[in-house]
Amino acid sequence: MAEPSSSKPAVPLLKDELDIVIPTIRNLDFLEMWRPFFEPYHLIIVQDGDPNRTIKVPDGFDYELYNRNDINRILGPKASCISFKDSACRCFGYMVSKKKYIYTIDDDCFVAKDPSGKDINALEQHIKNLLCPSTPFFFNTLYDPYRAGADFVRGYPFSLREGAPTAVSHGLWLNIPDYDAPTQLVKPLERNTRYVDAVLTIPKGTLFPMCGMNLAFDRQLIGPAMYFGLMGDGQPIGRYDDMWAGWCVKVICDHLGLGVKTGLPYIWHSKASNPFVNLKKEYKGIFWQEEIIPFFQSATIPKECTSVQKCYIELSKQVKEKLGAVDPYFTKLADAMVTWIEAWDELNSTTSEEASSKSANGGAAATK
Amino acid sequence: MAEPSSSKPAVPLLKDELDIVIPTIRNLDFLEMWRPFFEPYHLIIVQDGDPNRTIKVPDGFDYELYNRNDINRILGPKASCISFKDSACRCFGYMVSKKKYIYTIDDDCFVAKDPSGKDINALEQHIKNLLCPSTPFFFNTLYDPYRAGADFVRGYPFSLREGAPTAVSHGLWLNIPDYDAPTQLVKPLERNTRYVDAVLTIPKGTLFPMCGMNLAFDRQLIGPAMYFGLMGDGQPIGRYDDMWAGWCVKVICDHLGLGVKTGLPYIWHSKASNPFVNLKKEYKGIFWQEEIIPFFQSATIPKECTSVQKCYIELSKQVKEKLGAVDPYFTKLADAMVTWIEAWDELNSTTSEEASSKSANGGAAATK
Repeated sequence: MAEPSSSKPAVPLLKDELDIVIPTIRNLDFLEMWRPFFEPYHLIIVQDGDPNRTIKVPDGFDYELYNRNDINRILGPKASCISFKDSACRCFGYMVSKKKYIYTIDDDCFVAKDPSGKDINALEQHIKNLLCPSTPFFFNTLYDPYRAGADFVRGYPFSLREGAPTAVSHGLWLNIPDYDAPTQLVKPLERNTRYVDAVLTIPKGTLFPMCGMNLAFDRQLIGPAMYFGLMGDGQPIGRYDDMWAGWCVKVICDHLGLGVKTGLPYIWHSKASNPFVNLKKEYKGIFWQEEIIPFFQSATIPKECTSVQKCYIELSKQVKEKLGAVDPYFTKLADAMVTWIEAWDELNSTTSEEASSKSANGGAAATK
Repeated sequence: MAEPSSSKPAVPLLKDELDIVIPTIRNLDFLEMWRPFFEPYHLIIVQDGDPNRTIKVPDGFDYELYNRNDINRILGPKASCISFKDSACRCFGYMVSKKKYIYTIDDDCFVAKDPSGKDINALEQHIKNLLCPSTPFFFNTLYDPYRAGADFVRGYPFSLREGAPTAVSHGLWLNIPDYDAPTQLVKPLERNTRYVDAVLTIPKGTLFPMCGMNLAFDRQLIGPAMYFGLMGDGQPIGRYDDMWAGWCVKVICDHLGLGVKTGLPYIWHSKASNPFVNLKKEYKGIFWQEEIIPFFQSATIPKECTSVQKCYIELSKQVKEKLGAVDPYFTKLADAMVTWIEAWDELNSTTSEEASSKSANGGAAATK
């Protein structure tokens, strides 16, 4: 219940329990700005596109890097579930991590400043969000009741004040907002300048658009549902990777009694992607989401599904059955969901000790 | 979509379409501070307690005042549904109003300042909240998408971007937070100093603790559900008037496709009520709410209920049937809910012209 602050803690929180996953196609100069906050942590870099290209990582960071060749070698035929030429490839990093927590960030996201002008330690805030409970079953009008200076308000049931374990912390963006292509086209100059000083739980039964730009989660609680789908190269759709994950994750969190938070921390999103390119990637999604969202809103998972894996396999069946009619793509996606779980279980079935020795013996192509 | 601002608009918004309802037992000196914002509007003052006491209202305000004798005279035997010696009596003001909108505020609430030090025109922000749509069916991570500088984010279904009509605007409090007696006792010095610059829609299917201290609503859309129950004198419970209304209102808004917002504007809540007195009023509610909230969470209203009145009568039946077993109080409350609707319809069945002449001919005891 410590007051969130942007100061650097003496001992970095969860130093040995969290990996930072970064999908990229370019040199990671953006890490220079994050050095004070990220340097103590281990990075998992997922290189997208041409595997022969060399990605430069600034000195002093501890990282492992996977390119497409590595993914193909590690997963074999199951590598088909990992997208290519799309930042959806980042979910491979979630799978190979052996840590309890993941933070993922895009390489065009910089350190934002709070209203007092202080640099925001986004990672620290995410960790605080994950380590303190959520309140999915009843809305607290003063937002996060566990934050210093706040509490549950009058009328909040006492039986619900323990809250629920937090599985996901969804952070926001100053400067370039996360708009779809049509909104980008209509409002090319709009910038998000509003710093809303709140973290809130998205209530049970409510879906939200989860953006993968600045996102943390508890791998042990929800990892196998954080699949970013089939996007990019050879697929009819892009820019719906995080949305797909968000819908699946929220339905499963609701089923398992886990919490999803949104709000702080902000990062500084530096540049808008090309709206014309985005429109091409998105247009089927814009159409399909009108059917996908009602599907997820009404999806129910049977009581027997007590693990994330079981929930996800059940969801894949429902996707095939109900969304298969929307487009053959969803049949392929449903199969990929199953492949993803098989691959996840294969890489995560060993104990953490065995896993780290396996990883050291050739999991990563480049480890520093 | 105008930017919310705390400046005084040239022509006060909804000047002839909004009443300000104030329950009180004391002279209304607090209105001096609100003069720049409230003076153009009509006030409905509901005097609680001893009807022989004279309530002084600062010069220049346009008001009508009702004491217990007036309530008894106007409602006859149906006056039994209006609480006595409890601020729940304020809902009589909602009933006698002939306007489309209501703002209600407690007499210990003062003008708060925004982070720039400017006085907050709470009423103006409530009106903006009510006049612009809500988004109850899907969560927007950048909060109110209709606010200047914001929009719907990527992944928000386009079919839902029209939003839903807003029925309720729930404002918050700086300084003394709205805590229950146990929390007041445990944290006597806690003050709310955090200004969260956001208005958000409480999603469909999610209940919230509605506080009556700083609340606005659309009478035409939801008025008959804004019953503050049986509290205070002769009742086993107090301080649950607004909570009761909030649960009923939210269930009915969800059924009718109406929106409920919370967040801005803040008022400055000047003094904490006595926690020992509050504990005596609240303790049954603290126990009962553990059964009441699950009741409301699972309550469903049949499709045939297409008006607020029909929904409310249906809810009263379910209260009697399902909460009657918790305590005989709920049987009495269910009957009072029916009486309230009968009284509401009696006072609101005439046209607005007839109504104002009726009111002028003896509705109010004191009109200035």
